[in-house]
Amino acid sequence: MRNYRATVEYDGTDFAGFQLQLNQRTVQGDLEEALFRLTKDMVRVHGAGRTDSGVHAIGQVISFKSDTSIPKERISFAMNSVLKPDVRVLSAEETDERFHARFSAVSRTYLYLILNRPEPTAVWRRYALHCASPLDIGSMREVENSIIGTHDFSSWANSIKEANGTVRTVRQFHIRRVHEFVIVHIEANGFLHGMVRNLVGALLEVGAGKRTPEDIERITACKDRRCAGPCAPAYGLCLVKVKY
Amino acid sequence: MRNYRATVEYDGTDFAGFQLQLNQRTVQGDLEEALFRLTKDMVRVHGAGRTDSGVHAIGQVISFKSDTSIPKERISFAMNSVLKPDVRVLSAEETDERFHARFSAVSRTYLYLILNRPEPTAVWRRYALHCASPLDIGSMREVENSIIGTHDFSSWANSIKEANGTVRTVRQFHIRRVHEFVIVHIEANGFLHGMVRNLVGALLEVGAGKRTPEDIERITACKDRRCAGPCAPAYGLCLVKVKY
Repeated sequence: MRNYRATVEYDGTDFAGFQLQLNQRTVQGDLEEALFRLTKDMVRVHGAGRTDSGVHAIGQVISFKSDTSIPKERISFAMNSVLKPDVRVLSAEETDERFHARFSAVSRTYLYLILNRPEPTAVWRRYALHCASPLDIGSMREVENSIIGTHDFSSWANSIKEANGTVRTVRQFHIRRVHEFVIVHIEANGFLHGMVRNLVGALLEVGAGKRTPEDIERITACKDRRCAGPCAPAYGLCLVKVKY
Repeated sequence: MRNYRATVEYDGTDFAGFQLQLNQRTVQGDLEEALFRLTKDMVRVHGAGRTDSGVHAIGQVISFKSDTSIPKERISFAMNSVLKPDVRVLSAEETDERFHARFSAVSRTYLYLILNRPEPTAVWRRYALHCASPLDIGSMREVENSIIGTHDFSSWANSIKEANGTVRTVRQFHIRRVHEFVIVHIEANGFLHGMVRNLVGALLEVGAGKRTPEDIERITACKDRRCAGPCAPAYGLCLVKVKY
């Protein structure tokens, strides 16, 4: 069977996350159903990142094996013709038989979007966390260097029962203000479950002056989820890129 | 009675436009219902622009008269507590008794958002028109100067039964590319019904090489809607600012 690789975008609002779940609408479920409709075969889809319920993606990567007769340059068009509009295949190609969307990935990049202005929002309500009080970006940026690098991120994980341990390498972590938005950008070789949202939850406390940048270092060092505080909501998070 | 002015943002997707309509959900209807729930009075809301079904706003301005006991600094908070999340009052203030959101306005500014890339989109599907073929921005920009100024815009109107005639003054009209987007920005003292979407429809044909910039001048000159061609869809359009 041929091996395919595709890039997928989705609005996570109406999905119970990426990963297949019984009696729930999931991105993996929709993609497998689309492939079944097109090929009449049960096709297992693997995703680079198992995004949680409500989390979006503009650069999720999937892989799947199929001996479909659909020409490779028509795969994305064919899938989009049977998928609902909140999930789109941006591109698809035939790839090396050893390629696996999840296991071949060397890094994933997420963005967390915060609308930081006094006024609430209607048009950004699905994609950005609204934070009415001004955030102190200077303090937030002081956290960057304590997160970049190889650390045990247990304190930032919702569960420490991780198959691959709790040590991850963060390659990039930066926070910037763009007009009314504060954008948190993080790239790592992998993420523990809930890691980005827990980090953003603590960062928001730093930006609000409720914690210091040094507190974040202490939370990492204590290796206990109970130190870390609130989790930022799913809808501000987006998987933007996967590198191989 | 005191006169109030408020700025309103809404996601037009689930509304049959701004203006009140029987048995349909409209922005005006939702705002009047919110004010009724808060004040127990029937309050008439006037909007600066009567946006069509599906059109969004981040800077719609409304005015209404009320003798509510709600302190003016609490009006927006109170309204947001009873409105659905796809419409938000960004700010509200007490204003001069002669102020009228529609009749006092001196200009309105609209944006039309086009996602111009080969790949389709899930996350922008409510807010941007997807155009897969590359648009020739150079040609599109050649149209700018023929639209700016005072003209009879009959050719660009869905209906020429306009109370205030068909002459309008366009103060600004520009087209720019920002990453994968093409953004059309237009400010005028007023717009005929359908004017922005009809202009964008023709502009897209210029960008695709199906019409020349000179064709646009000819369409304006012929003063007949039948010359103008397709109308761009509502969901790419957003009312961004009203000046007084």
